[in-house]
Amino acid sequence: MRCEIVAVGTELLLGQIVDTNSTWLAERLATFGMDCYFQTRVGDNLARIEQTLRLALSRADVVIVCGGLGPTQDDITRQAIANVMSVPLQRDPTLLARIKAMFHQRGRPFTDNNAAQADVPVGARATEAIAGTAPGLICPVGEKHIYALPGVPWEMRALFEADVLPDLLLRRGDATTIVSHTLYCLGPGESAIAARLAPRLQALDAAPKTTGNPTIAFLASDFSGIRVRITAKAADAEKARQVLEKEAYEARALLGDAVFSEGEDDPVYHLPEAVVLRLLAERGQTLAVAESLTGGGIGARLTSVAGASRVFRGGIVAYASDVKSELLGVPPGPVISEETAAHMARGVCRVLHADVGLAATGVAGPDSQEGVPPGIVCIAVAFGDDVTTRTLNFTNRPREQIRILTATFLFDMLRRKIRGQSE
Amino acid sequence: MRCEIVAVGTELLLGQIVDTNSTWLAERLATFGMDCYFQTRVGDNLARIEQTLRLALSRADVVIVCGGLGPTQDDITRQAIANVMSVPLQRDPTLLARIKAMFHQRGRPFTDNNAAQADVPVGARATEAIAGTAPGLICPVGEKHIYALPGVPWEMRALFEADVLPDLLLRRGDATTIVSHTLYCLGPGESAIAARLAPRLQALDAAPKTTGNPTIAFLASDFSGIRVRITAKAADAEKARQVLEKEAYEARALLGDAVFSEGEDDPVYHLPEAVVLRLLAERGQTLAVAESLTGGGIGARLTSVAGASRVFRGGIVAYASDVKSELLGVPPGPVISEETAAHMARGVCRVLHADVGLAATGVAGPDSQEGVPPGIVCIAVAFGDDVTTRTLNFTNRPREQIRILTATFLFDMLRRKIRGQSE
Repeated sequence: MRCEIVAVGTELLLGQIVDTNSTWLAERLATFGMDCYFQTRVGDNLARIEQTLRLALSRADVVIVCGGLGPTQDDITRQAIANVMSVPLQRDPTLLARIKAMFHQRGRPFTDNNAAQADVPVGARATEAIAGTAPGLICPVGEKHIYALPGVPWEMRALFEADVLPDLLLRRGDATTIVSHTLYCLGPGESAIAARLAPRLQALDAAPKTTGNPTIAFLASDFSGIRVRITAKAADAEKARQVLEKEAYEARALLGDAVFSEGEDDPVYHLPEAVVLRLLAERGQTLAVAESLTGGGIGARLTSVAGASRVFRGGIVAYASDVKSELLGVPPGPVISEETAAHMARGVCRVLHADVGLAATGVAGPDSQEGVPPGIVCIAVAFGDDVTTRTLNFTNRPREQIRILTATFLFDMLRRKIRGQSE
Repeated sequence: MRCEIVAVGTELLLGQIVDTNSTWLAERLATFGMDCYFQTRVGDNLARIEQTLRLALSRADVVIVCGGLGPTQDDITRQAIANVMSVPLQRDPTLLARIKAMFHQRGRPFTDNNAAQADVPVGARATEAIAGTAPGLICPVGEKHIYALPGVPWEMRALFEADVLPDLLLRRGDATTIVSHTLYCLGPGESAIAARLAPRLQALDAAPKTTGNPTIAFLASDFSGIRVRITAKAADAEKARQVLEKEAYEARALLGDAVFSEGEDDPVYHLPEAVVLRLLAERGQTLAVAESLTGGGIGARLTSVAGASRVFRGGIVAYASDVKSELLGVPPGPVISEETAAHMARGVCRVLHADVGLAATGVAGPDSQEGVPPGIVCIAVAFGDDVTTRTLNFTNRPREQIRILTATFLFDMLRRKIRGQSE
């Protein structure tokens, strides 16, 4: 099944917002093996939206269009689709009642212009789900289909998952189930991960590309590791699940300590900070952090996870050297050292009455410090007086990358220590 | 002049990376008043790149294509352009020598496949500038032009600014200079900013759209305020600068205390955290932060600014309530209150020996705390014992937005206090 993605909005053409919707949809389509050869962005102009939809329909079986479904004058995607379908728009009274109920439920006043969101091209239907205040549209055009989704990212995603994806899979007509399992890896780089998996990659390459054989895909994510996604397709869910579990078992054995989390693909659930908070919560332990070059970024990442307060007590940001000695009891001497990191981790455990302490000290740049170049970072994990330290080398990377990688590697060091895994 | 943007790369179609290049280019083109009605993304496929370029050329005067200029098998943009121009590629020996010199200078080995980067369609020319290791291409197609740029963002931007933009302005043929000045605003929302500026917006709307009259554009940025950009176009730089200064003077008078920074458009330089660090550095004052719901995010933003160490001493992340009392001297009582914020701000000044203290306490959610709903946040700025507090209402916003807005409003409160501006 061949798909195209169209993003509608003049603000995209003016460069006022980044089009993350197309990227997200593209990844979802790729996951389910649907080809996508073109993505187009077009402004809030009826003729040009129509032209873009017609071109996309000429090249693909399915067109997913995001944006322009709202209640304002600018929102003309539903009219453009009606024109492409050569049908009028018709107000759906049942849908109107549902939209009104939704406004009422959220305590928002329903104004007349919102009624336009109940207009549906004749022959099309609204999605069952409503995210925000309006549904998406499923619009047949001959043998092909246009799916229209709102431009607000969370609404778009919710409607895609609830209504569009199931409809696409049904329409593709292969009575197969696709399931996937992702292994989130940290530590080795992408080529080292590939080398560990080589036996399985070669075996799968040699196997026939038919239903029943799993596939393995690599997805690097922004400084929070490498995702190894295994996908299996089979006639029924039970069989697909069996294929998946067998392959996951083999991949896990090869990847070993590189795996820090696994399960359904969910980048938020599997963030290193979320993983270490769960590990500590299971053990009933509390955490505190002592930061220098990260300036609070380690704590900020931990507390981005809802429910962090069960584990995280707080931290001390000792940016100036004398704060390290006065508040954390670091003895005089060079501050970019594993000894200092160890003192900071132990100190913050003591001062904040936490079971576990994390610490990072190093040079984010742009200037060297104590003769140490930007990118050299010392980290420590303390379980009371049991401290592990390590020096990381991120030289030649930009300041912000050094800070992000520092936190990621510190979380990885903590999960390895908890699980008794080697570095 | 009508432009189109084409981004090349299969990784874009698989959703593995977000296409920020098109967004950046779109904003630059809009700034200089060049229309852009379509943006397309296409994979590393010769026929489809050709098809996309031909379509774009049929609709626009200028096509800017990013990506696919590198040295690997996948990099076929130059071949696609040669096909569209109906000419062969020819290796340019002078360019080859320049590329080799560039490799040598950066201490990178020159391999044979890199020589392909000196291939130029007959009739086209390489950009003067080389960013990374390869130039861009300026390719005439009849009366129209294709500009090819590398896909690596910093290389793309450098070549666009150095060679493509001047060429576009020259080609547009208006012997005018365009200059712009941006007022960065925080406090009032977008509609309130528009209301303040209404007199000037109406006057400019009524004025003839000719050279010599400035324009005003609004650009909302992600939780760090609203940018009001004034652009002036005139026959020479001196005249344009005069028009700009006059309009900026009038806009500044209307916007008043909403303006927290201004100058050339540079989102990093004008970040609220960068502005307050500069204000404090000018006064020779030091800063410390006491954080609760932000978990370290305020400190992380301050230390994302290179050179923050001249002002920022550090902070205390008092996530658990007893850390607030033990380390910051907050008396017992509800922790979501302006009184607590004030105690935290004063406390962190004292404990970290800083001149100025910032503090935030509140509910990020998802659950209520002390009967206070998510989104209620109390902030404080202390200059020693002189403390200002405020309660912010971000209810019904997601957790991460509440945390980001808290930091932004706290920085804004600090700059208002320093400058003696009202809230």
